[in-house]
Amino acid sequence: MQNRQIVLSNRPDGIPGPEHFSAKTTELDLTLAEGQIAVKNIYLSIDPAMRGWVSLEPNYLPPVQIDEVMRSICVGEIVDSKHPDYAKGDTVYGIFGWQEYCVCEPNPMVRKINPELAPISSALGALGPNGLTAYLVLNELGKIEAGETVLISTAAGGVGSIAGQIAKIKGCKVIGLTGSDDKVEMCVNEFGYDHALNYKTTENLEKAIAELAPEGINVFFDNTSGAIADAVYPNLAMNARALQVGTAAVESWEPETPLGPRRDRHILTKRLTVMGFVLIDHTAKAPAALQQLAQWYTQGELKYRENITEGLENAPQALADLYKGANTGKQLIKV
Amino acid sequence: MQNRQIVLSNRPDGIPGPEHFSAKTTELDLTLAEGQIAVKNIYLSIDPAMRGWVSLEPNYLPPVQIDEVMRSICVGEIVDSKHPDYAKGDTVYGIFGWQEYCVCEPNPMVRKINPELAPISSALGALGPNGLTAYLVLNELGKIEAGETVLISTAAGGVGSIAGQIAKIKGCKVIGLTGSDDKVEMCVNEFGYDHALNYKTTENLEKAIAELAPEGINVFFDNTSGAIADAVYPNLAMNARALQVGTAAVESWEPETPLGPRRDRHILTKRLTVMGFVLIDHTAKAPAALQQLAQWYTQGELKYRENITEGLENAPQALADLYKGANTGKQLIKV
Repeated sequence: MQNRQIVLSNRPDGIPGPEHFSAKTTELDLTLAEGQIAVKNIYLSIDPAMRGWVSLEPNYLPPVQIDEVMRSICVGEIVDSKHPDYAKGDTVYGIFGWQEYCVCEPNPMVRKINPELAPISSALGALGPNGLTAYLVLNELGKIEAGETVLISTAAGGVGSIAGQIAKIKGCKVIGLTGSDDKVEMCVNEFGYDHALNYKTTENLEKAIAELAPEGINVFFDNTSGAIADAVYPNLAMNARALQVGTAAVESWEPETPLGPRRDRHILTKRLTVMGFVLIDHTAKAPAALQQLAQWYTQGELKYRENITEGLENAPQALADLYKGANTGKQLIKV
Repeated sequence: MQNRQIVLSNRPDGIPGPEHFSAKTTELDLTLAEGQIAVKNIYLSIDPAMRGWVSLEPNYLPPVQIDEVMRSICVGEIVDSKHPDYAKGDTVYGIFGWQEYCVCEPNPMVRKINPELAPISSALGALGPNGLTAYLVLNELGKIEAGETVLISTAAGGVGSIAGQIAKIKGCKVIGLTGSDDKVEMCVNEFGYDHALNYKTTENLEKAIAELAPEGINVFFDNTSGAIADAVYPNLAMNARALQVGTAAVESWEPETPLGPRRDRHILTKRLTVMGFVLIDHTAKAPAALQQLAQWYTQGELKYRENITEGLENAPQALADLYKGANTGKQLIKV
């Protein structure tokens, strides 16, 4: 049978977009070997991390090769199985790529989704990697405590919006930075942030944060790096934790590393702890975290937004739009 | 009686030197109130942290005021006491300032020195703050383990030389960065570093470090910040710890924070932990650490160098020279 795919056709120097991918149709043999499953993808995830996956720079996964199907986490339905743990009709989550069908041996990351708990698409966002990232960064690395002040960049995004809600559930004061007035409104009215700022239109962001948090920021959930983070560092409190979860505001790290204000004096005199977070390091903590997230969701304490674009062929454009901040909530492709 | 003092006469914009201090002689009444001690200073310590102490920038101690005696840790002899824990003739360590005599109520930082254990001057260096800093940074923050690769900047200095020896005692591979060929030789032959580099003459420091540590640096003891640290960050290994202990290579942080290559991508993809260390946070761990340091010293496993300049009046010049890297080992003034 035929399998439509999106492959990496040339390597971007910076932000990936439609010009770096091409569509192709290949012949797929659905005759499975022992231990394999065949998945029909239903939703594909569009993620900020994809820029790193298509880059040759050292990263936490090997780079996607030219002519290789673009790496992507997906939710799909098992259409055939020769694996004892999976049956036809199961809904599954895994790295199945930007394609209609995936035949593979399920790696440890593949897991079954309960379609009765929540919409299955949420397994790619709020009840999946985004929720896990938000939860684990705040609890395992940030060790947030009630009464602390937490600042979150990309505050209305797939990860940020969940992080904001978790910090509120935990009793923190929560400030969001986001890129439009609509998103500022969404942060405060939908996700429960105490305050939110439009970093694009706020004249002096550093001063505006200082006015909202004269007590200082205890935990900085940094999805952006760049000038946005530069406005936060002077506002960090003693013993603050700054957690590097993404670097969405820096267009390119090659060939020259971009310059920014040195942070060493803040790190030293305020005894900061700055840490990098990559979700794949924390798989052991995922089941308990997912259970907590699902509980909050079913109790109505956790809201999420999805932006679902129809059509596999639109994945590259959706990825480019992600870096422009065009999306609100988690960006998905419905195959 | 008369008390010679060195006071801060005007506030430096950057590195302090003789032009920022003046000598004066005041009349001192040695009649003590209940709970006070009178100390005759024997050695004064000249420390990189002093730049921060005379700056108005937020720091871990309030700034030294104009016309105030320069803050300094000292070793001296009790010449009179109305405090039950201290007797005439005791050798004591404390913040007694750049002056001949200090009358004060001993704060919790003051402690008695055993003059039979080691030369009393070592209480200001290897068996005092320098040794404590080296020990606690490596063990409490860096959590060094045998077999790891440790890189230390200002490797031949008062703190660095002790850190290098401790890392060797703990079974690490140790690389030092220092500012002259003499100091490179001293690092390797006297302090036991596996390798040392002269950062002033090494053409491509980043590449030279990579050649000495192709496995990557696990723990970075950063006393300098600036361009020296910039050469280290690309060489950090996965899960490395970068410990900000000083910023000696950055001349001034005001009015504009100096720029440097952004480190966020390293922090994220290598899951670095970057932490600031200030000794006064760790007083609870000091007694056990001092005991270990003294044991290593008496066993001949810990060597230290002192550079003792005679004369209270030479303290400001000695401080200026410290930032030029002119000293080898711990810089002291003999009053």
